[in-house]
Amino acid sequence: MLGRERLKRLAALKEKKYRRRYGRFLVEGPHLIQELAMSDWPVEWLLLTPDRAKDPALRQARRKLEGRGASVALLSEADMARLSEVATSQGVVAVCPLPDRSWSQKQLASWRRVLLLDGLGDPGNVGAIIRTAAWFGWDAVLLGPGSADPYNPKAVRASMGGLFFVPVYEVSLEEALEALLTHDVALWAAVAEGGRPLGEGVPVPERVALLIGSEAAGIRPQWLKRAHARVCIPRLGRGVESLNAAVAAGILLAYLSGLGPKTSAG
Amino acid sequence: MLGRERLKRLAALKEKKYRRRYGRFLVEGPHLIQELAMSDWPVEWLLLTPDRAKDPALRQARRKLEGRGASVALLSEADMARLSEVATSQGVVAVCPLPDRSWSQKQLASWRRVLLLDGLGDPGNVGAIIRTAAWFGWDAVLLGPGSADPYNPKAVRASMGGLFFVPVYEVSLEEALEALLTHDVALWAAVAEGGRPLGEGVPVPERVALLIGSEAAGIRPQWLKRAHARVCIPRLGRGVESLNAAVAAGILLAYLSGLGPKTSAG
Repeated sequence: MLGRERLKRLAALKEKKYRRRYGRFLVEGPHLIQELAMSDWPVEWLLLTPDRAKDPALRQARRKLEGRGASVALLSEADMARLSEVATSQGVVAVCPLPDRSWSQKQLASWRRVLLLDGLGDPGNVGAIIRTAAWFGWDAVLLGPGSADPYNPKAVRASMGGLFFVPVYEVSLEEALEALLTHDVALWAAVAEGGRPLGEGVPVPERVALLIGSEAAGIRPQWLKRAHARVCIPRLGRGVESLNAAVAAGILLAYLSGLGPKTSAG
Repeated sequence: MLGRERLKRLAALKEKKYRRRYGRFLVEGPHLIQELAMSDWPVEWLLLTPDRAKDPALRQARRKLEGRGASVALLSEADMARLSEVATSQGVVAVCPLPDRSWSQKQLASWRRVLLLDGLGDPGNVGAIIRTAAWFGWDAVLLGPGSADPYNPKAVRASMGGLFFVPVYEVSLEEALEALLTHDVALWAAVAEGGRPLGEGVPVPERVALLIGSEAAGIRPQWLKRAHARVCIPRLGRGVESLNAAVAAGILLAYLSGLGPKTSAG
């Protein structure tokens, strides 16, 4: 069993300050634990309620995680509820180290599809976007200042495991753009209006970085002006002013992943 | 000012049971009120806190709504907080009648793009999907049993006004499919895997109804078997098992709205 002190420290991981201080984050719920087991993400602890420990669906995930060095402990329902971020705990939580990723230009040479987020503050949207980037096999997601912490429990849950399969970096957009542009990656900026409408044969570059801003503020001008192309999702109806950020990102990621018109790159 | 009894009845509109009983729903926040003013949706009451009543940005919306017959009343911050669905009320709420729409085959002849949802229980996703359908100018959104109430405050907020611009019907899927198929509308079913992958030149029919199921359960077999085509969004990465329902719907709606490959309909 875990002691009171350790349990208190783990519960504190729901807050960003303590995630940074202790270098760890929480992964909650059977589905995410199974995704975690399929990934090669390091795991320190697997914590289960006695009921959940009997769940045959989790047995394989547990074996895999133990094989990778995770310790397993049982927690009472009451203790589990203290770690849980949701109203009704699902009885299983993993404690993982934050990734030891420093922004380096080294990986860049092999990247073909990179997503950059400028000021996306909603953790649910950030998680859903990471999920989509993982689905389409993008090479990296770069989070600029003002974006939600991807290790926030809501973001982790919304990523539905995507976080374990696409590398996510928190970056200075200045440095990241500089590096991408030096490596001949085309920079596309998503704008609400006034860009080239997708669907009209906008050719998809061989290597592309897609920059998305917040629903309310869009991309900050200093980054927008560095883009090679401004693209927008054509509005064909009336009334609504914008799309949900995760939905817009999904449409753009799909388009750039080969679901758009087949035209050769210009 | 509104009396205690009326205020209590209005606060009850946060629950579906009372929305049905009183035939009304709430629209909250300045952005949604402005969208409401741009639409032709009937409005009974516009309720403002004294502070918000001074807001110049809302003046035009208020004039429009008064012109359409809405009564205006001031509410104290405390009373407004009782109506609000969010932690920090934004000081403005409208009371609208539920639409008097009965499912009728009459409109069908002019519909070219129709979205059907089977069992989408999350109000945030349902709202975001309505927002996307309005953005792309779809003709109708049909909600089958098990889908979230589109007049739920969370769904209204997530729709960002889309609810006022695309007709939403709660239907029996049996009846709706029967009517659509009789009218020669092609039925596409979105499946997680095993369908024709979008992007490989799947031709878009002239008139199409897109059927989407829940993330967990998918489309029920009795509806799935009636589809002319099963389509899926190709998974190009690894790890994640599905996309967020609103994101997947967005990608499919975009594709069917002309952002996919340009091929003539088969």
